[in-house]
Amino acid sequence: MAEASDRSNRFLRALRRQPVDATPVWIMRQAGRYLPEYRATRERAGSFLKLAQTPELACEVTLQPVNRFEFDAAILFSDILTIPHAMGLGLHFVAGEGPAFERPLRSAGAIAALGVPDPETSLRYVPDAVRLCHRELAGKVPLIGFAGSPWTLACYMVEGHGSRDFARVKAFALNEPAAMHQLLDTNARAVAVYLAAQAAAGADALMVFDSWGGMLAPAMFEEFSARYLAQITALLHADARTRGIPLIVFSKGANASLEVLADTGCAALGLDWTITLDAARRRVGERVALQGNLDPATLLASPAVIRREVARVKAEFGPHPGHVFNLGHGITPDVDPAHVSVLVDAVHAAAPAGRP
Amino acid sequence: MAEASDRSNRFLRALRRQPVDATPVWIMRQAGRYLPEYRATRERAGSFLKLAQTPELACEVTLQPVNRFEFDAAILFSDILTIPHAMGLGLHFVAGEGPAFERPLRSAGAIAALGVPDPETSLRYVPDAVRLCHRELAGKVPLIGFAGSPWTLACYMVEGHGSRDFARVKAFALNEPAAMHQLLDTNARAVAVYLAAQAAAGADALMVFDSWGGMLAPAMFEEFSARYLAQITALLHADARTRGIPLIVFSKGANASLEVLADTGCAALGLDWTITLDAARRRVGERVALQGNLDPATLLASPAVIRREVARVKAEFGPHPGHVFNLGHGITPDVDPAHVSVLVDAVHAAAPAGRP
Repeated sequence: MAEASDRSNRFLRALRRQPVDATPVWIMRQAGRYLPEYRATRERAGSFLKLAQTPELACEVTLQPVNRFEFDAAILFSDILTIPHAMGLGLHFVAGEGPAFERPLRSAGAIAALGVPDPETSLRYVPDAVRLCHRELAGKVPLIGFAGSPWTLACYMVEGHGSRDFARVKAFALNEPAAMHQLLDTNARAVAVYLAAQAAAGADALMVFDSWGGMLAPAMFEEFSARYLAQITALLHADARTRGIPLIVFSKGANASLEVLADTGCAALGLDWTITLDAARRRVGERVALQGNLDPATLLASPAVIRREVARVKAEFGPHPGHVFNLGHGITPDVDPAHVSVLVDAVHAAAPAGRP
Repeated sequence: MAEASDRSNRFLRALRRQPVDATPVWIMRQAGRYLPEYRATRERAGSFLKLAQTPELACEVTLQPVNRFEFDAAILFSDILTIPHAMGLGLHFVAGEGPAFERPLRSAGAIAALGVPDPETSLRYVPDAVRLCHRELAGKVPLIGFAGSPWTLACYMVEGHGSRDFARVKAFALNEPAAMHQLLDTNARAVAVYLAAQAAAGADALMVFDSWGGMLAPAMFEEFSARYLAQITALLHADARTRGIPLIVFSKGANASLEVLADTGCAALGLDWTITLDAARRRVGERVALQGNLDPATLLASPAVIRREVARVKAEFGPHPGHVFNLGHGITPDVDPAHVSVLVDAVHAAAPAGRP
């Protein structure tokens, strides 16, 4: 007999590749604009940054999706760029264009001057929000803390904003590798202490979003992204606050490098939808659990199509332990929340991954 | 002894996986805004569409890069959306936003009403430009004709414009597969006769750009993109004008489906830079030549870095026949043309792929 599992622990059991009573599911950006209650709180906050930096409001929106749906995990509402903001780069959001920094990094000198922010001072609103969420959730579902990856932070820190091709930061990495490695090392140490502070505050699992790792050729991915993901897992393993806390790494689009990612020492890999879970599983074997990977566009299709596509993704993973169902990217604002219920029910339906 | 090869035939020899005296090279968007002479002709034309639709001007910009650099092939200056424009959708270009259609397809009825345009009437400016280029090139280098893929055309035809995630066209494919298949079949037949007209007019090789195939999950890629690429190769093989003319297929980002792509019957696969050429070659074996795959951002780095990265890509392919050097995506407008010379010289330097 397997240990009983339910909403309170099937997500963590799946990350450990243990049998579960039903496939656990959460979705990226589940606390987001597709939810009317999120839009109401966001309106009250006045700005995205204010929402992320006010623990009571961040906690409120973190809990909204797990109260409305049968999700098996909550993920802290926050932003991946909190760390460079605390480093002094001046984060702001340009309407319709996304995040930008007032003071992007343009020289080796500026990089050398960066320090690792103390999470309990300049970033205190983050562990404070985790503490609130931990208390409010009261064990109902596990809570995921997260950070941006060293490379993805560097993309925004050097470019100053999002980019279609991130050519500037890549050229900087190629032309000034020593300065780039110094930046990535600083970012990796900052991410590790930041994640450790979230774990100490009550996060049950951790995730690193390497949103732009997949823009790199494999050799550059290994040198400038994966190496620093491995540094983070080593630092987390060396810290009593995070040893044993599962870490999920999601390098969107870096499917050429799954073996390298599995070797970073993380517990699970997030996957986008451009690879099948069985192909991924054949390549990484039993080293890691897998999280993913339904195309978010599926949620714009009919309920019948959603059910069929959820069944397809589950079948592609097969009857093994170690699957956390998710989208392959964040849910988009135009999705009908009723379609999310259809998805969650379909994931929890018969034939869970890893049934004993 | 191998047959002698030079600029006039090493590109075609490499596509047939025959030995060559030096690795052939051309780059996507080589007739583009990074060239001052292109910007001058574009200025004279008044608009991008006017430039593409005036055979004398299209021919002029097609020849500019092969006159300035030692490229081993010219590619017709045109646009991938000429076919839906000829179908009556009303192509126009929105400054800073790219192509858009006045009358996007929003119903099965609109799709059923579409016809296959006759390339020598509504699209006559394209074979006319090919005839001019063929005459002007006079055998100096081969000329590549091209079209957008059935799926990529459908993306723009249904969405009405470019999109970050193409969620609308994907949801349409999921909800109304019969209508989508009818559209893709019409597009495939239109692409095949269009490519055949370019071959009859003097194109020595053909290429299909599946720019958005990589946005699809593998099962959808096979159903909605690869199937119609195979239909095109079958139609080209059945047509005396195109039998034996090599076809290159470039499905950007569809690296999970290389085996499926190699089975479409094309001569070569274009590859983006997110996979190594040796990994790709191991998967497709001797079935196809490979074209690619330097990250275009490399051209923003120093000449020394460009030389090193070109050598890396060549070494990744290894000492086999069947490599056409290219970027993994189009060259960007901010590149210094002197850096393109560095690239071309480095590709042509010692240790060509497939030296006998």
